[in-house]
Amino acid sequence: MKLQTPFIEELLAKVKFDDKGLVPAILQDAENGEILMFAFMNRDSLKKSLETGLATYWSRSRNSLWVKGESSGHTQEIREVYYDCDHDCLLFKIKQNVAACHTGYRSCFFNKIEDGRVVEVGEKMFEEKDVYRKKD
Amino acid sequence: MKLQTPFIEELLAKVKFDDKGLVPAILQDAENGEILMFAFMNRDSLKKSLETGLATYWSRSRNSLWVKGESSGHTQEIREVYYDCDHDCLLFKIKQNVAACHTGYRSCFFNKIEDGRVVEVGEKMFEEKDVYRKKD
Repeated sequence: MKLQTPFIEELLAKVKFDDKGLVPAILQDAENGEILMFAFMNRDSLKKSLETGLATYWSRSRNSLWVKGESSGHTQEIREVYYDCDHDCLLFKIKQNVAACHTGYRSCFFNKIEDGRVVEVGEKMFEEKDVYRKKD
Repeated sequence: MKLQTPFIEELLAKVKFDDKGLVPAILQDAENGEILMFAFMNRDSLKKSLETGLATYWSRSRNSLWVKGESSGHTQEIREVYYDCDHDCLLFKIKQNVAACHTGYRSCFFNKIEDGRVVEVGEKMFEEKDVYRKKD
């Protein structure tokens, strides 16, 4: 899903960014409803996400826009976009390629709290060491 | 789902709260996977949520803990809890009584972005004026 620039500007005016210029974004699998990831977007990354149809974030460590999956290939193709009643949270329904989480789990929410313990659940798509190179 | 206090303390030590002492929480329908609400919890409201099994938030306007639905009856019964790979976001799978949104929609994410327009989608469970009294 890609939107036209004049309409994107209209939308950006509706969204409420916080005092750091960020808005929370929930990423949900468009097919099975699984919550895959949570992240913050700034104005520029939201604009780029809507223009390109690929979920894009702001990397504070690199101080630049970051297209999710641009190095790993694990891109997030946007299918549907929603905002909430207060206009201060976004929901993206996406097609997730391979996995959302850098750990190899398909979803970042693989830590399930059970009675007296935390268990890892969910589908592991790859081993972290095989995909992401160590940073120098 | 209610947890025992010693284990709750263990969990609270694992969760990373931000510089305002808050952690984002995604509320998802345990049955059909619909995203119902997004909110922030502080340490005390997360503790109370896990102790009582009812989603509880921190009201900045009232400066007090706020059990969701305590006046409207639209409580959120916690069925499952997850945290993400970075330990800085929570996912609650809940049984939502009536509706999550004060507007009457079952989900707060009723604004769907379509090509060139925003449309209201989703199930409206009540009219706002019939449930919430106006504040003086």
